Amino acid sequence: MPVSVQALFFDIFGTLMDWRSSIAREAEKALAPQGHQLDWIAFADAWRGEYQPAMEEVRAGRLPFCKLDILHRHNLERVLPRFGISGVGETALSDLNLAWHRLDAWPDVARGMARLRKKFLLAPCSNGNISIMVDLARRNGIVWDAILGSEIAGDFKPKPRVYLAACEAFNLPPSQCMMVAAHSRDLAAAAANGLRTAHVARPDEYGPATGERGPTVEVDVAAGDLEDLAAKLGA
Amino acid sequence: MPVSVQALFFDIFGTLMDWRSSIAREAEKALAPQGHQLDWIAFADAWRGEYQPAMEEVRAGRLPFCKLDILHRHNLERVLPRFGISGVGETALSDLNLAWHRLDAWPDVARGMARLRKKFLLAPCSNGNISIMVDLARRNGIVWDAILGSEIAGDFKPKPRVYLAACEAFNLPPSQCMMVAAHSRDLAAAAANGLRTAHVARPDEYGPATGERGPTVEVDVAAGDLEDLAAKLGA
Repeated sequence: MPVSVQALFFDIFGTLMDWRSSIAREAEKALAPQGHQLDWIAFADAWRGEYQPAMEEVRAGRLPFCKLDILHRHNLERVLPRFGISGVGETALSDLNLAWHRLDAWPDVARGMARLRKKFLLAPCSNGNISIMVDLARRNGIVWDAILGSEIAGDFKPKPRVYLAACEAFNLPPSQCMMVAAHSRDLAAAAANGLRTAHVARPDEYGPATGERGPTVEVDVAAGDLEDLAAKLGA
Repeated sequence: MPVSVQALFFDIFGTLMDWRSSIAREAEKALAPQGHQLDWIAFADAWRGEYQPAMEEVRAGRLPFCKLDILHRHNLERVLPRFGISGVGETALSDLNLAWHRLDAWPDVARGMARLRKKFLLAPCSNGNISIMVDLARRNGIVWDAILGSEIAGDFKPKPRVYLAACEAFNLPPSQCMMVAAHSRDLAAAAANGLRTAHVARPDEYGPATGERGPTVEVDVAAGDLEDLAAKLGA
């Protein structure tokens, strides 16, 4: 572990947050009382499935940047009819869209983050917008030094600007910043922009044994979870 | 106090931080060992005196936005010769410029902010850049939900964009946000953009009995210090 690392940037969806079971729970809570019965996990996967294609429109320059809350709403309206759901009122839709503000963290996150905060500056570097990050932090007891990521940068990972804007906000060169993620693609992009990288295994992200058990690219640190990461970074 | 307020935005220099005695101390620490003797408080006032004119170049559109660290450095180089100081090396200059990252808060701040955090989302809405805010928070035990203000907005207060960008980052209408400042000009601009306002008295900002003992404009709340503000907001 390089001693010069001053700041850690975190991917959020999947790396710190178990979005899949949380979204399934929130969707059921919102829609079951209206008489809808469906495979809630499949619904969560379908909603999440629209995530990359929606951001790609922005990354490719075909749509101007907008915060992820807007894309989530657009995606929700695409996905609901596929499950035979229509006629959901605006208030209920709007509240369901905030499901992404009510995710639960993986069990190791609160303790791991508290340890890491003693040694490093901490910020999310997520494609989620500031308000999502703020609500998730309050819900899960995470203390950030700043909220960085897509909304600061005006683009979505893995575009270079997102990583570089995070480093610049902390007045740090990329070599003193480390991206922490459960996704090798994110880490490869961070490394290509000069950041250090740490992989955290989230093997169950999309269900049992579906996630990355380890990095598929070269990283500086590979950790089993955030407490393991804290130990490996001497925090 | 309106019950609908969800978030408090804070002015930093003067309202939460005693910049004057901190800058005087830091300047003496940096320059006295090099044999310089001068009125350190006068030096702090002179450096701070360049603050508004420098930002005005940006607000007026004559210079592109840049973070306050850059303006502080430019201002430092203008002020040093007036005190007969030249030949300071780059490392020392660069470190002295970070004096604004090492300010001490007024004595009521840590306790008042901890109380306010239990009830409200909290963010700085300062003309300082993110890195200054991050370092001041760590130094003074302040926990923010996000760092908002000039660097997010790409302009300086009292331009409307700075207040509105802060509200938008929290997904809140201005009517559910409250600007907290020791300066009536800041509060007048916030109110003109639809935010609620709270004045905090800092009568000694520029030396004994030089600051605003109370607001000179209409505000929603006028407080003696941050603990008084917490009490008045029911936190």
